[in-house]
Amino acid sequence: MSINKVSFLSELDASTFKNLQGYTSLAVIVDENTKRDCYPLVSSLLPEHILIEVVSGEENKTLDTCQHIWQELTNAGFDRKAAVLDLGGGVIGDMGGFCASTYKRGIDFWQMPTTLLSQVDASVGGKLGIDFGKLKNHIGVFNIPDMVLIYPEFINTLPPNELRSGFAEVIKHCLIADAKHWNTVSKKPLKEQDLATIIPHSINIKDGVVTSDPTEKGMRKILNFGHTAGHAIESYLLDIPGRKLLHGEAIAVGMIAEAYLSTKFTGLKESELKEIQEYILSVYGKVEIKESDLEHLYAYLLQDKKNTGKKLSFSLLSGIGTCTYDQFIEWSDIEEAYKYYMSL
Amino acid sequence: MSINKVSFLSELDASTFKNLQGYTSLAVIVDENTKRDCYPLVSSLLPEHILIEVVSGEENKTLDTCQHIWQELTNAGFDRKAAVLDLGGGVIGDMGGFCASTYKRGIDFWQMPTTLLSQVDASVGGKLGIDFGKLKNHIGVFNIPDMVLIYPEFINTLPPNELRSGFAEVIKHCLIADAKHWNTVSKKPLKEQDLATIIPHSINIKDGVVTSDPTEKGMRKILNFGHTAGHAIESYLLDIPGRKLLHGEAIAVGMIAEAYLSTKFTGLKESELKEIQEYILSVYGKVEIKESDLEHLYAYLLQDKKNTGKKLSFSLLSGIGTCTYDQFIEWSDIEEAYKYYMSL
Repeated sequence: MSINKVSFLSELDASTFKNLQGYTSLAVIVDENTKRDCYPLVSSLLPEHILIEVVSGEENKTLDTCQHIWQELTNAGFDRKAAVLDLGGGVIGDMGGFCASTYKRGIDFWQMPTTLLSQVDASVGGKLGIDFGKLKNHIGVFNIPDMVLIYPEFINTLPPNELRSGFAEVIKHCLIADAKHWNTVSKKPLKEQDLATIIPHSINIKDGVVTSDPTEKGMRKILNFGHTAGHAIESYLLDIPGRKLLHGEAIAVGMIAEAYLSTKFTGLKESELKEIQEYILSVYGKVEIKESDLEHLYAYLLQDKKNTGKKLSFSLLSGIGTCTYDQFIEWSDIEEAYKYYMSL
Repeated sequence: MSINKVSFLSELDASTFKNLQGYTSLAVIVDENTKRDCYPLVSSLLPEHILIEVVSGEENKTLDTCQHIWQELTNAGFDRKAAVLDLGGGVIGDMGGFCASTYKRGIDFWQMPTTLLSQVDASVGGKLGIDFGKLKNHIGVFNIPDMVLIYPEFINTLPPNELRSGFAEVIKHCLIADAKHWNTVSKKPLKEQDLATIIPHSINIKDGVVTSDPTEKGMRKILNFGHTAGHAIESYLLDIPGRKLLHGEAIAVGMIAEAYLSTKFTGLKESELKEIQEYILSVYGKVEIKESDLEHLYAYLLQDKKNTGKKLSFSLLSGIGTCTYDQFIEWSDIEEAYKYYMSL
C-alpha cells in the first residue's frame, strides 16, 4: 500500500476539490507565475480561500518567506482545521508544505505541482523544507501531504528549460529502477517524449521507493543518485552571476559524475557509462566547471545531509536499472569524477 | 504502552548517558542559568559534545534563536546521526526539540528538564515549538523525544517563584484526573509538598493522556484546562513592563476562571469552585487584571490554537478529578469568568 495519496487528473472540475470543503479555511499559495498561468484554471472550482503570493525562485525558499506565509495564515485567523493548497513547483511545495506542517504544530496540506520536476519528484514522498544560508533543504520535516493532485496539462505553461529540468528526474528514475523504460526514453529527444506515460511511470517508481522507506533510513537513498555531486554544483552556482543552474541541469551533471564513480566502485559497465553520458549531454549540453570551482564543491559536499561523520555518502548504479546506496567515497575520487565530466 | 521514554534518576553517573555514545556528534543546549547550575553536574559524564548557549526567557523562544541554534549545529558539521540534549526548562526543551526536529529534517533529541514545570509538563508529550510575534507556541511540530531524563535534584537550583510556577501543572493534573491526590495536595502549602512523589504522579497522568491521543484530536485536550484563559493572560502581559507572569502564575488565574466556567456549563459544584480558588489563591496570591485589559485578552483568545473557526474552545471540569473538552464558550461568558476572578 502506498503512503502517498496521488490523484491523476485528465481534467479539472468541481469534484476535484470537493474534499477541501471540509476545512474551516483554505489558503492557496502561488508565485507570480502560477498565479498567472495556473490559478485561473482552478480558482472558480475552489471553495472560499485566501491567496498567498510569494516570489518565485529557489533563492526565496527561505525562513523570511516562511514568516510571510505564517503571518498571512495568522492574519486570516486560520485554526488547526484549516488547510493549505500549494499551487506551484518544488519551491512552493517544499516551503508551503513546511509552513503548513509547522503552523500551530501542523495543519493539512494538499500539493498541486505545476512543473514536471515537482510532479515527478517533489510532490511525492513528504520531504519538506527550506534552504538555510546556501544549504539546500537544510531545515525541514518529513510529512506526507493529505492529497497530491497531478494535472499534466499544467506542464504546457512551462518554459522549455523548466521542462528539461524536470526531465532529469525522469531519467534518474529509469536509471535507478527500470532498465527497460530507460531503453525507451533514451532513444528519443525530450520533445518527442510522451508525458502522459512518463509522468505516472516516474511517480510510481518514486512512490514505491518512499513507501518502503519514508524517512530515508536505507532504500530511499537510491533516489539520491546524481544528487550528491549535483546538489553541490547547484548550491555553489546559485549565487554566481550568469552561472546559476536549474535543479535538473545540475542533477544532469551529477548523474554523469556519479555514473563515472559507479564504473569505478559498483560495477557499472563502461559501455553503460557512455550510453548515459551521451544521452544526458544530448539533452542538457555541457556545463562549464573550472578547476578553481572544485575546492568550493568539496566544501558543499561536506554539508550534504546524506553524510555520516566525515564520509561522503553516494548512491551509485551497479548497472542501468539498479542502484546501491551507502557508498562512502573519498574526495580524491569525487574530484576525479568531476574532472571526468569536465573532460567530456 | 507509553509513547514516552522517561527515566527517573535518583543519581547521575556515566550509565545515565551511555546511549548518547552511539551518535556521531552531540550538542548540549543550555541557557545562562542551566549552564551555571546544572551543566557542571553532567558535563564530565557526557560524551564529547559542543555547548550551545541561548539567553533564558520566553521572550527568546523565537525564530531568531532557532537560527542561532541551527547555525551552530551547521558550523559544527552535525549530520543526520547527530543528537541534541536539551538541558533546561520548557523554553529550551520546546525550542531545542523543534530545532532538532527540523535540522536536516530531524535528528534525535533528548530532554533533560531542569525545572518542575518542564519535568511535569513540557518534557512529556512531544509538543515542540516557538512563539511567533506574541503568539505562544504558534510555530512547531509534534515529535516525541528519544529520551526524557528526570532528575528531581535539579529543582533545588530553582528560585521559589519558578518552583511555584511548575506546581500549577501539578495542581492541574490532580484537578483533571485524580480527586484523591487533589485531596492530599490541596491540604498542604507548597513548601510542605513531597516532590519525589508528586513529580512521578504528575508525569504518569500526563503520559497516560498523551499516549492515548498524541496529536490532540480529542482526549489530550483535557490537559488544556486552565490554559485557554491562562495563555491569553500570559501572552498579553508578556511585554507589559512590571506585569509579566511566569507560565504557572498565569495558569493559576486561568484555572480559577475556567473553574468558574465549569460551574456554569459542565456541572462543577460551587463548593468545588470555592475549594479550588481558595487553594490556588493561597499559593499564588491574586493577579491584578484591569477592566481595560479585557478587550486585549479577547484578541489573544481568538488566536488560540484550540479554536475551531470563531468558536472559543475550552476544557472544563465536570467535577474535581474529571474533565471534559470541546466546550465552546461565548466571549460574554469568558469575560464574566475573568470578572469573577477580578472580584475575588
